Amino acid sequence: MDTLAATACVLIIGNEILSGKTQDANLQFLGAELADKGITLVEARVVRDDKAAIVAAVNECRAAYTYVFTTGGIGPTHDDITAECIAAAFGRDIVLHEEAVQRLRRRGLELNAARLKMAHVPEGASLIDNPLSGAPGFRMENVFVMAGIPAVARGMFSTLDEELSGGAPIHSRNVDVYLPEGELAAPLETIVHKYPQVEIGSYPFFRERRYGANLVVRGTDADLVDSVLKEIIATMTKLGAETA
Amino acid sequence: MDTLAATACVLIIGNEILSGKTQDANLQFLGAELADKGITLVEARVVRDDKAAIVAAVNECRAAYTYVFTTGGIGPTHDDITAECIAAAFGRDIVLHEEAVQRLRRRGLELNAARLKMAHVPEGASLIDNPLSGAPGFRMENVFVMAGIPAVARGMFSTLDEELSGGAPIHSRNVDVYLPEGELAAPLETIVHKYPQVEIGSYPFFRERRYGANLVVRGTDADLVDSVLKEIIATMTKLGAETA
Repeated sequence: MDTLAATACVLIIGNEILSGKTQDANLQFLGAELADKGITLVEARVVRDDKAAIVAAVNECRAAYTYVFTTGGIGPTHDDITAECIAAAFGRDIVLHEEAVQRLRRRGLELNAARLKMAHVPEGASLIDNPLSGAPGFRMENVFVMAGIPAVARGMFSTLDEELSGGAPIHSRNVDVYLPEGELAAPLETIVHKYPQVEIGSYPFFRERRYGANLVVRGTDADLVDSVLKEIIATMTKLGAETA
Repeated sequence: MDTLAATACVLIIGNEILSGKTQDANLQFLGAELADKGITLVEARVVRDDKAAIVAAVNECRAAYTYVFTTGGIGPTHDDITAECIAAAFGRDIVLHEEAVQRLRRRGLELNAARLKMAHVPEGASLIDNPLSGAPGFRMENVFVMAGIPAVARGMFSTLDEELSGGAPIHSRNVDVYLPEGELAAPLETIVHKYPQVEIGSYPFFRERRYGANLVVRGTDADLVDSVLKEIIATMTKLGAETA
């Protein structure tokens, strides 16, 4: 972990994810996108719409990681409290952002108090474009505040290319091995110790009445990732396992 | 939050969830099941297969919440380090659990070193039954350690009924309101302030070219939850909104 070029934490804000009402659909997407940029997603947290909890999590994570990405809680209703929490975490006032007002105005809707709430950001924040519906997210230092609706979160994240700098992209290769994990564990561990530069994971499955595991090799050196995968396949084949 | 009878945290352990390889499928299930038992899921964290990170998260969460549920990392391969991390978090040795050995033996598989790893638990832990595949989880004080494979996690959780005591079940009712959130926010907030005993959430959607929000009322008093939902529907209907 000490050689990571850039690290990140995702903070998912919203009671609906914890109550079981809603399946989160942002974490997997962000994890994959960040890996492509050479940024390692080290942690994710899901917190309730609770000011003290959000402020504490933001302050802990922004100190620990290169980037923090939040999703959720930036709409116009009473339970959208992310902006005021980020302001509190940074000890800033929350202010009306003129450019955000203009963007909301362009949608042609009446700018009532609820909608104007969406144009309030912590003092000093810059806007994150919302290609889908106008209402922007915002960036405060290393904290990127995005919508919870997956399509909008993806749209916002897609605009951040130039603001994020990672290391070499993290390459990933995997193979299904039809051998119970209990049998492939020992030979796999030999390979794990031989190549500390890559990360190797084993994810068991039971499919068509057969036990197996999806073995994953990840690392920044694509050639090494390929050759380690080949060595894994050769080793497992020697043990009599079918691979796919 | 100060009136919660019992609280919980879910700790999802595994690089595959953070790399984008795998979509978590345990959090939503556990959130809903815990709500049924009157246990409020207050937080969830996803951490990497990293000993220091897991130990820190376990110790932070077991001190803060009534229950901690972990998923992932209890298989036979090198990246399954949950048991040793829980032992370290509690300052205990990791020991071979004879009953766990018997359960593994009953599966009829060769008990090699990798498989015996699955029979090692922190000293003093009790087993959690695995109705699906035998290899047990374990409980250490208020920490419940379960498999990551969703079917197995569900099977294990289903055996915990008598070990978990919550408060009154949390009831939930919801309605789709076809009105943009920016327009329903103010009248909804009036209702929110009128009924502090329930939790009200607003989750926007864009469907068949129409904006709307799913409004959710949650609380332990089923009659109150019903009547607040009725008041919401009446209020929104008066505003000219279609509800469903």
